[in-house]
Parts: sequence; structure tokens; C-alpha cells
Amino acid sequence: MQIDGTAYRSIWVDPADGWSVLIIDQTLLPWRLEIARLQDYEQAFVAIRSMQVRGAPLIGATAAYGLALAVRQDPATDAMERAASHLATARPTAVNLRWALERMLTRLRNTEPAARVQAAYEEAAAIAEEDVACNQAIGTYGLALITEAAGSGKRVNLLTHCNAGWLATVDWGTALAPIYRAFNEGIDLHVWVDETRPRNQGASLTAWELGRHGVPHTVVADNAGGHLMQHGEVDLAIVGADRVSRKGDVANKIGTYLKALAARDNGVPFWVAVPSSTIDWSIADGLAEIPIEERSGSEVATIIGRSEAGEIVRVSVVPDGSPAANPAFDVTPARLVSGLITERGLSPASEEGLKGLFPELA
Amino acid sequence: MQIDGTAYRSIWVDPADGWSVLIIDQTLLPWRLEIARLQDYEQAFVAIRSMQVRGAPLIGATAAYGLALAVRQDPATDAMERAASHLATARPTAVNLRWALERMLTRLRNTEPAARVQAAYEEAAAIAEEDVACNQAIGTYGLALITEAAGSGKRVNLLTHCNAGWLATVDWGTALAPIYRAFNEGIDLHVWVDETRPRNQGASLTAWELGRHGVPHTVVADNAGGHLMQHGEVDLAIVGADRVSRKGDVANKIGTYLKALAARDNGVPFWVAVPSSTIDWSIADGLAEIPIEERSGSEVATIIGRSEAGEIVRVSVVPDGSPAANPAFDVTPARLVSGLITERGLSPASEEGLKGLFPELA
Repeated sequence: MQIDGTAYRSIWVDPADGWSVLIIDQTLLPWRLEIARLQDYEQAFVAIRSMQVRGAPLIGATAAYGLALAVRQDPATDAMERAASHLATARPTAVNLRWALERMLTRLRNTEPAARVQAAYEEAAAIAEEDVACNQAIGTYGLALITEAAGSGKRVNLLTHCNAGWLATVDWGTALAPIYRAFNEGIDLHVWVDETRPRNQGASLTAWELGRHGVPHTVVADNAGGHLMQHGEVDLAIVGADRVSRKGDVANKIGTYLKALAARDNGVPFWVAVPSSTIDWSIADGLAEIPIEERSGSEVATIIGRSEAGEIVRVSVVPDGSPAANPAFDVTPARLVSGLITERGLSPASEEGLKGLFPELA
Repeated sequence: MQIDGTAYRSIWVDPADGWSVLIIDQTLLPWRLEIARLQDYEQAFVAIRSMQVRGAPLIGATAAYGLALAVRQDPATDAMERAASHLATARPTAVNLRWALERMLTRLRNTEPAARVQAAYEEAAAIAEEDVACNQAIGTYGLALITEAAGSGKRVNLLTHCNAGWLATVDWGTALAPIYRAFNEGIDLHVWVDETRPRNQGASLTAWELGRHGVPHTVVADNAGGHLMQHGEVDLAIVGADRVSRKGDVANKIGTYLKALAARDNGVPFWVAVPSSTIDWSIADGLAEIPIEERSGSEVATIIGRSEAGEIVRVSVVPDGSPAANPAFDVTPARLVSGLITERGLSPASEEGLKGLFPELA
């Protein structure tokens, strides 16, 4: 997508040297756009660990390029395996991280050391391109929902929660892919962006990327969405997901469930955009079976922002001695989900629907 | 209620001199407990205007004492009327502010100037005492709900939104009155405190007052309540209200409606604690008829907190150029409200219920 008129991806190989890997340092957003250069696998490890890159697909692509950097440093099998094991520990729960490394290793183990550098860059590029293609397909299928909501030219108001945009993937995003696609086609639209406490991914990342691409949007407190829906200010809600059960229950950023309840209460369609890799076929009942990460209460008790002096500072917002709890995700039951937007089309949030689209995975 | 073992109210006359008025400067909470002294009506005006005092009942009591200070400065009718007119403009929409001033003027106009100082302090004290008695009654009736939830000794988990505690009233609070009452009686309980973005009254005021009184509590992001209810972590939700329609629709801090939806979806009782003065008998359909204040987007775009250096600073949390919207309240339809806790007892959220308890007001 674009940043003030220039096309960007969230990760790319520097065309100037053909091998070093460039990323957007997302820890500095929305305050500063800085491109970081990764020149060895340890730098890729740090980028993932420190959340300079985040979002499952982007973490996977960064790990893949990290392994390409590793074999450039030393193409021997031992060194390559050690680098992959190290990269795999950069984040504890990122499924895509291990998936991307396994895919890289499968190809590289079957490649002579002398040919590994080229093969590694090829495979990492393929992982990145497949992510882009997958998200483009989600954008195309989701576009139909926005077109339908637009009807005969009325402005479409969308609502999204957290960040499921191009910054979380290699390009396009999942929940935001249909929105970018519709905006690029000239559909008149506006996005309500949930702040998404406690980590504020909506206010800091979604608002930033929509704004830089030129998409009209407004940031609201997470508390506001129900009121907006009651007053007809939301035509369509689209969110991403961290994991979807085979019956269509959706684990996503904490607070998603509350928006789904409000959407149901007000007749607002509530769609979830996911690549099929997000569907966990081993799980039926999302509420009972998907474990919810309990993160540090300090993420609730403190907020990072920019002071009036222009410094990025962390401030405390709860009294000394008051504990804070921080469940990071919640599960929206399939009954509240209008449907799933996948790379193969729209599906009801049900086992039959998902099996129909992905018979070979089910 | 208590602050670390010492009983406080939110406003009182200094016993040392018998006339100056002391308040807790709430703009410094939760970081610093500072008592401010009001010695003339202009200081009372500033205290209300700058939100050193907030919460409808406390604003009313402060205005009443402000008028007492005014007649102490000059008991002449002209001066008194001018002071009252000035005090009435301290906050634009506070009904209790004008109500308290009218009540004071009614008494003082019928009092000789020479006797006005004593009469004014008496009337202001009566207004304060009546608020305390009303909240105590709410506490007593609400206690039954908590006792019932406690059953045979299990810990009761409550959830509340915003601040409807003693800091918003003269003492006890509305939503928190039953909680303080139950805690003081030795019932094992714990309160989930919604942060309450954008102004963070939950994190900064409710958590502070519960903590200082010794009530076990945990601050959570506003997004977390649905997840907690899904997992059986909430036995009872109690909130306050800014206005209640005669049919029981509840206008309260933005986000209340989302919690009411989650409570309904999970079978959690959802109660609203209100003095009868909060019921607007002229309004039937709260959603259609109660106007919702749209406050400045800067309250969403910035947050006040304490830096690691110990300074209280305002930080920006949205990108430059991203607009923010800030509806301050929402309306929870009566169908989602288990009932109202009033100073005359529990009532269904319905016109029949409210008329039955308050026939002379209906």
C-alpha cells in the first residue's frame, strides 16, 4: 500500500545491493517512519523479538528472510540448522514463524550448500508473494460486501478492531484488504478505527496506515462502537483473526466479541477476514478449546505516547498498588459471525461452509 | 469512605474555622491526594469548572457551599443573586448544579440578610446529608443483590464501568455504595474495574477509591469485560447512570451498552444504581430522546499519565492528521437492564416499576 503516495511493502530486499532486507520499524509508529536494515540473522531475530515487525504473516516472512541472511553468512548445514532453531524462539506463540522456517529448511536441506543462498532468497520471496496474493484474493472477495453496502452510491461506514492491515502482513492486510481495494476503486467509504486498548494497535497502526494511504477514517475509543451501531453509523464491520475453529468461532484481539454482540443487536453485518492458514481444523469449540494468552498487566497500567515536547514516553495510568489483568484475546462464537472472507471466497462461519471451500484441509 | 484508614467525604466544612470548605482535588488523582480549600465563591466556581470536583451530586453540593461562601462575602440580595448566576455557569449540562442553587435561593430569599450565612451553611449541609442518606439507602438495597450472589460464602466478582463511587457524590457513591456496604459487612468480594476510556475514570478514580478503602479490585481494559463474563468471572455488574428514562432506558458513560449486551449473552445480572433524581420522567424512549454529548476528540487522541520521572504529562496516542470522535455516553435499552437500585428499593427497568416506587414523581 502507499505511504503518502509511494508504494511500500512491510518487508523487501534492498534493490541497491540485492541481499540486505529492509523493514519498517513498527515500534516507532505512528510517530516516526524509519526503515531498518537487516544484514544478518541475529538482526532478524531481534526485529521479531522486539516487535519491530509483528503480525503473523509478516513474522513468517521476516523469519524466512532471516534464514536467507543466515545461509549467506554460512551455508553449511550445521550453521543453517542452528540459525533456524534460534530464529524459531524469537516469539513464543507465532505459528507462522515455525511454519516459514520449516518450509525454508525443507527446501534448503535438499539444496547443495553452494546453491543455498539463491534458493533461500527465492523461497523467502515466494513466501512473501504468496502472502500478498492471498490477501489480494481476500480483498477481491471482500470488495463484494462493500460494494453491496454502498448500494447506489451512499458512503459506506466500516468499523474495524485492532490492526489487520498491510503492516501485519507483507501487503494489503486481511481485514483492511477489502477496504483498500474498495477505496482504490473509488467507492466512497469511511472507517471507524477502534483504539484497541491496551496496546492501541488501532490508534497507532491502523489509523496510521489508513491515513498514509489516504483512506478517510476516525479513531474512536473501544467503548464507542455499540453507540455508533445503535445510531446507524456502521454499515459493515470487518475484523481479522488470530485463530478460527473449524466451526467458525473466532479468536481475535480482546474486545472483538463485544463488537460482534453490538453488531448482532443492531443488524450490522460482522465479517471476519482470514487466510485459510488461520483456521485450526483440530479445534471445534473455540470458546472451550482456544487458550487465551494472559499478557502482562503493565500493558494496561501504562501507555506509550508522544509528549508535548515530542518525546516518546511511557506513562502510568492506574494508581500505585492497583493490579491490572490483561487477557489478550477473546472468542466470538460463530453464531455472531456473518461469515468469513477467505482467499477462496466467502464462507458461512460453520464447519460445512469451511469444509466446502477447503476440502483438502478439513 | 476511607482513605488508608481515615474516614473522608468528598466535601466538608473545615472544623478548624467552621466556614471554609475543603474538597479533594480530583484532577490530581490517582497520583496525589491534595485537599483544596475554598474561601470564596469564585474558588468554588473554579473547582467545578476545572473538574477538581465532578459527579452530579458532588457538583450540586459544591455549588451549594459556594453560595454559602458568597453570602458570607456579601449577604445582600443583589450580590447573592449575582453569585448564584455565576456559579450556575460553571458546567454547561449539570442538572444538579442548577437544582442545588435554586434550592439554596428559595431558602435564602426568604431569610433576612443578617441570618443568611447561617441559613446557607445549614441548607448546604442538608443537601450534602441528603445525598449521603440517599446513597446509603442505595447501598442497603443493593447489598441484597451481592448477598444473594455470595450464596454460601463464595467470593463475589463484580464489574463496574466509569466512576459512580464516593468521589462522584458526597459519600458512598451510587454503583459502589452496595459494594462498600457488602465489603464493610465482611462479604468476600472483588471488583473488575473497567478502565473507561477515553477519560479513564475507572482506572484513575474507581481503582483509587476502592484501593484506598481496601476493597480488592483489578483494572481491566474496557475490551475485557465480555471475555470475563464468558468465562464465569463476573457474578454481577453494577453501574451508575447519568439519566434514566421513565421506561428504564439508561444513559451512562460510553461503553455501558456493550457490557450490558455481554451480561445478557452470558446470563450475568446487570443492575443500575440511581437516585430518583436521575430519572427523567419527561423521556420515554432513551435511545431516541436522550441527547448524547459529543466531546472533544482530543480526549481520545491524548491521555494523561505519570511519566517514569514522576511528572504528570499528557501524551498523544493517535497519528498526526487522524481525526478522533468522542461520544461521551450511550443508552442501554431497558430490555438489557436487570433492574434499578434506588433509594426506595429495587425496581424493574420499566415504567410500571418506577411509577410504583415513585408515584409522586411519575
